[in-house]
Amino acid sequence: MDTRAEQLAMERAQKVRLMMFDVDGVLTDGGLRYGAHGEAIKTFHVLDGHGIKLLQQFNVKAAIISARDSDIVRRRATDLGINLLHQGVHDKRAAFEQLIGDLDLDPVQCGYMGDDVIDLPVMMRVGFCASVPNAHPEVRTRAHLLTHAHGGHGAVREVCDFILRAQGNYEAALAPYLT
Amino acid sequence: MDTRAEQLAMERAQKVRLMMFDVDGVLTDGGLRYGAHGEAIKTFHVLDGHGIKLLQQFNVKAAIISARDSDIVRRRATDLGINLLHQGVHDKRAAFEQLIGDLDLDPVQCGYMGDDVIDLPVMMRVGFCASVPNAHPEVRTRAHLLTHAHGGHGAVREVCDFILRAQGNYEAALAPYLT
Amino acid sequence: MDTRAEQLAMERAQKVRLMMFDVDGVLTDGGLRYGAHGEAIKTFHVLDGHGIKLLQQFNVKAAIISARDSDIVRRRATDLGINLLHQGVHDKRAAFEQLIGDLDLDPVQCGYMGDDVIDLPVMMRVGFCASVPNAHPEVRTRAHLLTHAHGGHGAVREVCDFILRAQGNYEAALAPYLT
Amino acid sequence: MDTRAEQLAMERAQKVRLMMFDVDGVLTDGGLRYGAHGEAIKTFHVLDGHGIKLLQQFNVKAAIISARDSDIVRRRATDLGINLLHQGVHDKRAAFEQLIGDLDLDPVQCGYMGDDVIDLPVMMRVGFCASVPNAHPEVRTRAHLLTHAHGGHGAVREVCDFILRAQGNYEAALAPYLT
Repeated sequence: MDTRAEQLAMERAQKVRLMMFDVDGVLTDGGLRYGAHGEAIKTFHVLDGHGIKLLQQFNVKAAIISARDSDIVRRRATDLGINLLHQGVHDKRAAFEQLIGDLDLDPVQCGYMGDDVIDLPVMMRVGFCASVPNAHPEVRTRAHLLTHAHGGHGAVREVCDFILRAQGNYEAALAPYLT
Repeated sequence: MDTRAEQLAMERAQKVRLMMFDVDGVLTDGGLRYGAHGEAIKTFHVLDGHGIKLLQQFNVKAAIISARDSDIVRRRATDLGINLLHQGVHDKRAAFEQLIGDLDLDPVQCGYMGDDVIDLPVMMRVGFCASVPNAHPEVRTRAHLLTHAHGGHGAVREVCDFILRAQGNYEAALAPYLT
Repeated sequence: MDTRAEQLAMERAQKVRLMMFDVDGVLTDGGLRYGAHGEAIKTFHVLDGHGIKLLQQFNVKAAIISARDSDIVRRRATDLGINLLHQGVHDKRAAFEQLIGDLDLDPVQCGYMGDDVIDLPVMMRVGFCASVPNAHPEVRTRAHLLTHAHGGHGAVREVCDFILRAQGNYEAALAPYLT
Repeated sequence: MDTRAEQLAMERAQKVRLMMFDVDGVLTDGGLRYGAHGEAIKTFHVLDGHGIKLLQQFNVKAAIISARDSDIVRRRATDLGINLLHQGVHDKRAAFEQLIGDLDLDPVQCGYMGDDVIDLPVMMRVGFCASVPNAHPEVRTRAHLLTHAHGGHGAVREVCDFILRAQGNYEAALAPYLT
């Protein structure tokens, strides 16, 4: 990403008060690990967890909007302190509109990170959208920010750091670890 | 793949009414995740699932032909709405011939995606065959289309998108997500 | 690998009647997937399985020698028709010498594939030894053949194909799939 | 890493009597493999295990300091003969200071390997610190040694070998396997 595109993305990220994440391919590597009774395991990443906690600490709410419905995600959301959890959502746009209504937010104050075409209706409405290098091409080319890491390998942390930096909080988030 | 080869592959894909997939190494990354009682987990990919659903929506049937037999695949097939499921098939050619007999299809209307030599008898008979970059060399060099993504990492989605595009349905499949 | 080194490796592989494999890092990706009660899952690769079956079909015995002891490996060996299974072996040289004594083989008729220093005593005694690109450097630099694929991603299949080719059986092994 | 930086890192590693490891992203690939009841699997690497055993054999103690608390890590530590196991540690600096007090060591005699900002307070206090290529950038740029392998893919073994070499024990550690 060239400098100009990154600067524009940063201006967009500056306004974000709610950051929404897709699950499969974003918070995970997109792998659906099935046993005989369906999905048994999802692989999240340790770097992402700390990023989401830092976001919340600096007054950016985190939400999850996923087309699939999984107890595994429910458990991970609990561990991350995310209570804005919307699963089994096939119309992500409707879920998004209800969410910003409830929170009284403007779309420009929202960010979304996704990897497949089903994420596009929300991505094209929010102020700031991010994706991963292994996303579907239609999504990759429409994102304001493309991470270096793949989904499930720290991509979410990159986005969290980017927002913290855009909002001038990155140094403050890092400070406790530099003493 | 150069432009000419891609164009020929597209002409072949245009006629496909039945797309058949191998499982291990194509719908999965080829990893056989064993516990003490045999295979416990198979890793499919979220991008592939949406591709197979789109194919079916645009009148291309999807089938699975696998040498191994697994409850895990049965479960994944159910989730994808695939009822043409042939497992424990050591003679894939025989399974293929029975399948096209039942469906009253010509081989030129069939596509197959595989990654090992056991897949060659079907690949060399169908109108359109695809493979993955990490396939066995004998298979890789005989495929009409080679995906960029590895098996289990979205390779099947690439093939689904390719067929949709060849049949002029890609834009229509994408349209609901661009409103 | 340059042409001369490959030719020498092929002359060595030509004589192999027994091919021995290490497990972790060779038949698997080296990942030790622990649950709370120890190792729960090992990830083998589908391409490797077919290669080992072909070797046996063309009169090369397959054996497993592993420092760890695992029911998972026992199960995988059964599925591959390998009954020469030596686990929990810390002195691999002793296990090797007993094995060739039992089978009445000369070291020059044996091959070994390993990835760590514990494999060196056997690797330096057999006629033909192979390793993977992500092996320990001391092993990588001493192997007669280095595969392109990583352990657990088809590296064993490459070695099986190499032996079949060295012994003039590759075309015959492929033939049934080209009809 | 250029030669000068590597030489400085080697001088630091020469003094290490206690080597401390973070778990997620260092001893593992950073993947948090959740089932419905939380983390179910952690993926360690076989090369790392042998490295940690060699370190201990050549009089360098090994310790684990992790922010998360897991029975899985407890089990892996037991298998590796590590009894200096500190889990559920959110203030890694305090854990570190207690540990060197108990063992009567100077910080310069300690090494630490981590991958996230929470590791920085210890990394900046010890004599020798290492990290992985996929670590958080703030950590990667502050490490004395950066491994080639990623976390959970043999990165810890590289560090163990580096310490053995710095202390003149590498050849002795290798010798039993070259007879």
